Amino acid sequence: MGLFSKDIRTLNDLFVHTLRDIYYAEKQIVKSLPDMIEKASDPGLKRGFKTHLDETQNHVARLEEVFRMHGAEAKGIDCPAIDGIIEEADDVAGEVGDKSVMDAALIAAAQAVEHYEMTRYGSLIAWAKQLGRNDCAAILQRTLDEEKATDKKLTQMAESAVNIRAAS
Amino acid sequence: MGLFSKDIRTLNDLFVHTLRDIYYAEKQIVKSLPDMIEKASDPGLKRGFKTHLDETQNHVARLEEVFRMHGAEAKGIDCPAIDGIIEEADDVAGEVGDKSVMDAALIAAAQAVEHYEMTRYGSLIAWAKQLGRNDCAAILQRTLDEEKATDKKLTQMAESAVNIRAAS
Repeated sequence: MGLFSKDIRTLNDLFVHTLRDIYYAEKQIVKSLPDMIEKASDPGLKRGFKTHLDETQNHVARLEEVFRMHGAEAKGIDCPAIDGIIEEADDVAGEVGDKSVMDAALIAAAQAVEHYEMTRYGSLIAWAKQLGRNDCAAILQRTLDEEKATDKKLTQMAESAVNIRAAS
Repeated sequence: MGLFSKDIRTLNDLFVHTLRDIYYAEKQIVKSLPDMIEKASDPGLKRGFKTHLDETQNHVARLEEVFRMHGAEAKGIDCPAIDGIIEEADDVAGEVGDKSVMDAALIAAAQAVEHYEMTRYGSLIAWAKQLGRNDCAAILQRTLDEEKATDKKLTQMAESAVNIRAAS
């Protein structure tokens, strides 16, 4: 990353830059999910995080496919946003002293991650279409659909059981 | 925040902690929007950011109202997530060497901020309801609705004009 140069001159540059940002982010998420699986008490939540770990590994592979199709090198770049979101999740988890409240906190942390991914994939898909890369957009859309589905499942888990236990 | 103590023991503690997180975040957004207004070239985008600055100041005031209603001190706590999201926006903007591409990058950055707020307000509203604070939930919901509306407007601006110019 040339911090003092202007490396992003075209929408294509911005597209590749952001692909590399989310590539790094997905890999960080793969690293942090095992810790969340371990911290979760609710069996459904634990299972949900495990499923999402598999999905996330698949999202990494899909990004590598998009890099290949687009003729760009698959490499990550620093992504202070996901680092901050994960750091905050760790900070909060470190302060929670109750299992049910921990589950509620973990769901909120996971949803912050999902929302970050949703916004980045949303931008990437719009840019891919504008760049005439509907093929790349279609692959990215499959991941976006899975992130949205995970976010919905987390909301359902929170509202149907986890928050109720956390408040009792 | 006591990093080595377990200060969050109840869902109410988590609710207040997260209120303070988003309170800090909203204030950081108030600080960073003038820079985004200055960097934007598209007149509609500039105007949109200005309107959102007014809204964000109102979101801060609403949070102060919720703190008051809930009998908790209105204070911010460190929020590495929003710091990371804003840092990343600054990094990317620093690398963009074209006005139209800058507008596309600014929209993506603003949408990352919106999505962070949407997820936090979503959790806060669910927890407020669980805690029997439908009055607080109703106030937070007004802000969430505005964040969602802003996100939609940004998507429309990107797809109808900004991305097209950025790709040309």
